[in-house]
Amino acid sequence: MVTRREDFSKWYLQTIQQADLMDYAPVRGCMIFKPNGYEIWEHIQDEANRRFKAEGIRNAYFPMLIPESFFSREKDHIEGFSPELPFVTEAAGEVLEEKLALRPTSETIIGDSFAKWIQSYRDLPLEINQWANVFRWEKRTLPFLRTSEFLWQEGHTAHATAEEAQERTMRMLDVYVELIEDVLAIPVFKGEKTPSERFAGAERTFSVEAMMQDGKAVQAGTSHYMGTKFAEAFNIRYLNQDNEHVLTYTTSWGISTRLIGAMIMTHGDDQGLVLPPKIAPQQVVFIPVGPWQKNPAIMETIEQLQNDLKKEGIRTIVDDSDNRPGYKFNEWELRGVPLRVEIGPRDLANQQAILKARDLADKESIDLANFVKEIQTALSEMQVRLLESARQRVKELSYTHINTIEELEAHIEAKQAAGEPLGFVLAGWNGKAETEAEIKERTGFTTRNIPFAGTVEAKHKDIITGEPATTTVWLARAY
Amino acid sequence: MVTRREDFSKWYLQTIQQADLMDYAPVRGCMIFKPNGYEIWEHIQDEANRRFKAEGIRNAYFPMLIPESFFSREKDHIEGFSPELPFVTEAAGEVLEEKLALRPTSETIIGDSFAKWIQSYRDLPLEINQWANVFRWEKRTLPFLRTSEFLWQEGHTAHATAEEAQERTMRMLDVYVELIEDVLAIPVFKGEKTPSERFAGAERTFSVEAMMQDGKAVQAGTSHYMGTKFAEAFNIRYLNQDNEHVLTYTTSWGISTRLIGAMIMTHGDDQGLVLPPKIAPQQVVFIPVGPWQKNPAIMETIEQLQNDLKKEGIRTIVDDSDNRPGYKFNEWELRGVPLRVEIGPRDLANQQAILKARDLADKESIDLANFVKEIQTALSEMQVRLLESARQRVKELSYTHINTIEELEAHIEAKQAAGEPLGFVLAGWNGKAETEAEIKERTGFTTRNIPFAGTVEAKHKDIITGEPATTTVWLARAY
Repeated sequence: MVTRREDFSKWYLQTIQQADLMDYAPVRGCMIFKPNGYEIWEHIQDEANRRFKAEGIRNAYFPMLIPESFFSREKDHIEGFSPELPFVTEAAGEVLEEKLALRPTSETIIGDSFAKWIQSYRDLPLEINQWANVFRWEKRTLPFLRTSEFLWQEGHTAHATAEEAQERTMRMLDVYVELIEDVLAIPVFKGEKTPSERFAGAERTFSVEAMMQDGKAVQAGTSHYMGTKFAEAFNIRYLNQDNEHVLTYTTSWGISTRLIGAMIMTHGDDQGLVLPPKIAPQQVVFIPVGPWQKNPAIMETIEQLQNDLKKEGIRTIVDDSDNRPGYKFNEWELRGVPLRVEIGPRDLANQQAILKARDLADKESIDLANFVKEIQTALSEMQVRLLESARQRVKELSYTHINTIEELEAHIEAKQAAGEPLGFVLAGWNGKAETEAEIKERTGFTTRNIPFAGTVEAKHKDIITGEPATTTVWLARAY
Repeated sequence: MVTRREDFSKWYLQTIQQADLMDYAPVRGCMIFKPNGYEIWEHIQDEANRRFKAEGIRNAYFPMLIPESFFSREKDHIEGFSPELPFVTEAAGEVLEEKLALRPTSETIIGDSFAKWIQSYRDLPLEINQWANVFRWEKRTLPFLRTSEFLWQEGHTAHATAEEAQERTMRMLDVYVELIEDVLAIPVFKGEKTPSERFAGAERTFSVEAMMQDGKAVQAGTSHYMGTKFAEAFNIRYLNQDNEHVLTYTTSWGISTRLIGAMIMTHGDDQGLVLPPKIAPQQVVFIPVGPWQKNPAIMETIEQLQNDLKKEGIRTIVDDSDNRPGYKFNEWELRGVPLRVEIGPRDLANQQAILKARDLADKESIDLANFVKEIQTALSEMQVRLLESARQRVKELSYTHINTIEELEAHIEAKQAAGEPLGFVLAGWNGKAETEAEIKERTGFTTRNIPFAGTVEAKHKDIITGEPATTTVWLARAY
């Protein structure tokens, strides 16, 4: 077992394999979501759907194949996506008249439909979401975080006014913050992407960025305000109350299966995966200990307790295999199950059980009389603890004292020498793309996002030129 | 509005459009699932997932792209599917070394994984399910029923013995019967497909067939026993307890979004869609009537009642638009909402509401004091009523008196002259593919499935040759 500190990348690949989350596929850059990995996604989907529904957003499904010509209608969009598109060129033994792209995102095909569906102001806002597989032919891939095919949700909305569209854009960013922090226990940095990092075709792109244990960033979700760019490209117009055909304002926003990768890199430890209770496929594992096979009352008790938990919607599993307890403990720790409950003859005699939370070193005794309540409390305490502990680390690895590129270079050198994470660095920026490019070239750090005014202490000088900064930006190396 | 009797196909296309379930896509043969259509699928998914979970089957996700060479490993499989495959031949600006098929079904890519994952008898059975988009490049398409891209679930299992695999095959067929009848209120014919209608690569294929109101068949679900054919093709072997590497026995089984089409064609009437309550996106529509805008207590009462229903998990909508009640009634009938609740000043004064079930002609008064209970009862009664009414029709249109091809031809002629459905015809069959082909050529009827022994009265003579029948088979024209 390699440790996180020894080799974080290797630790990650080892952890996802040992937790049986995924497998590599026979097609380059694609992956297989095994049941333990896929079920995490299903819980994320449930939680997201609940929130989308509360926002009045319904799910739909659009075709995966998009005519090549659709992409060229929005010039930034085609520039951004064409280098990564796979194309269907033949079907049923015949060459197609027009190549069909495997969707990398669906603004174009949904824009085409919105143009048909929207006639008057009464049809607005039109707000839909889609769960789908998408394709971006990536050169370098990493399971969950960057694969040629991945799973995601993409919301698409059209509005009568710029204000309404902007409000939806910001609202979904907040929904993502709440979802990612509350459900996945991943603290995020909320802000706006710089122009060079905008979604291809967006007027403004906002993101939530997460910091992994190795100090690198994962873009965990994005929300885009398109202005009228896609409305112009696809002629999405409505008859307003003055009887004029005017353009709508659109948005899109998405989260993907890369959240699973971010979750693993946020919470995992040297014993393997650590799953936040809310998305754990199994929340509690029961392990009978001692001479339990000779003592049928132990398994009977476990089955009873398991039923009691099931009634409360708690997901459980029992390991009654012939393996030794130590082997089992290790196995379920690798898989990240939040709580382990051990019951042996002595525990049963005392009407107690041993409870071990995956993220704590110590075990505790709990009374069977109060079992369900104890488990519920332990699950919700662990959920909070994981977020707090990640928040603490993120705070420690967020550096706001660096003012010049030389200081950033020195920071990198010092941290690398000590084998410590580089973290996020807050910098002043003159708003120029050249500066951004130079930062990247000299340090490998990219702009993550621009925090909203008042949420951080502003930096007043551009990190490269020393000129007055127009804005403050988070920098980090990123996945 | 065309009626079902005037032109059933036209009625179907009109109904799905007016109920706002779908739209045509800019890519040939593909369709868009609008929210009202997609949500029906989401309810089917929930119901299916609950049943799969009870069977111990978990969800996973495999890549959509399958190397061309995978198909040729099982000769029947490639023969069956190659005429319909779309291929990705280029990606990221480069021509691929090997063409990648868009999955039409996943036996091959899952077989490849199973071969890696299964080592010993301890790994068996291996039972997984996948929800996915699949592609079959169809020449003639029909929304929901036959499209180039569609959504489905495909279960894949591997077992140590033939018996176990056969048991799983039959068990899933029964799960489908229960799901389709109980949730979609569609009565089905359960049986085995003839050899010529088997899934490409299966040893035995079983199906559930549904009869539409026009008497034509829709294959509603299939379950396949593969024997060791895919295990041989992909080398899926396990070490048995005698330390021998032996082949596993595999199965697969699937239902798709064509169930939505079958449901529409089973329950719809000349006023539009009729949705079984269990899968209706909105189960109850509230419509305030009379001078309700001057009487705020009406909308207050409706909101209260809506909340009461929501607490019980009942899906509701309120139509408080400015349209006239007659217009609204018609609109929600087109959309197939199971129950309509009207409340006006007089109803409120009497502490009553008017309840109208979509499938009944008459309205009834219900007491607000007992509102939730009344609605729950009305929903479950309607669910039962739809199944019973479909069962009655299916019974009337199932013909068991026909013994010769001439009688079948006469039946078709007489029914067509009367403008009546042809229905399902039970026939004796000598088990020969030539006979099957001749039936099809002369009548357009195809073999649907062979009912299980004892479920129907056996026919003793082959319908074409008059030779002794080896089996009894349902014949029908099919979608």
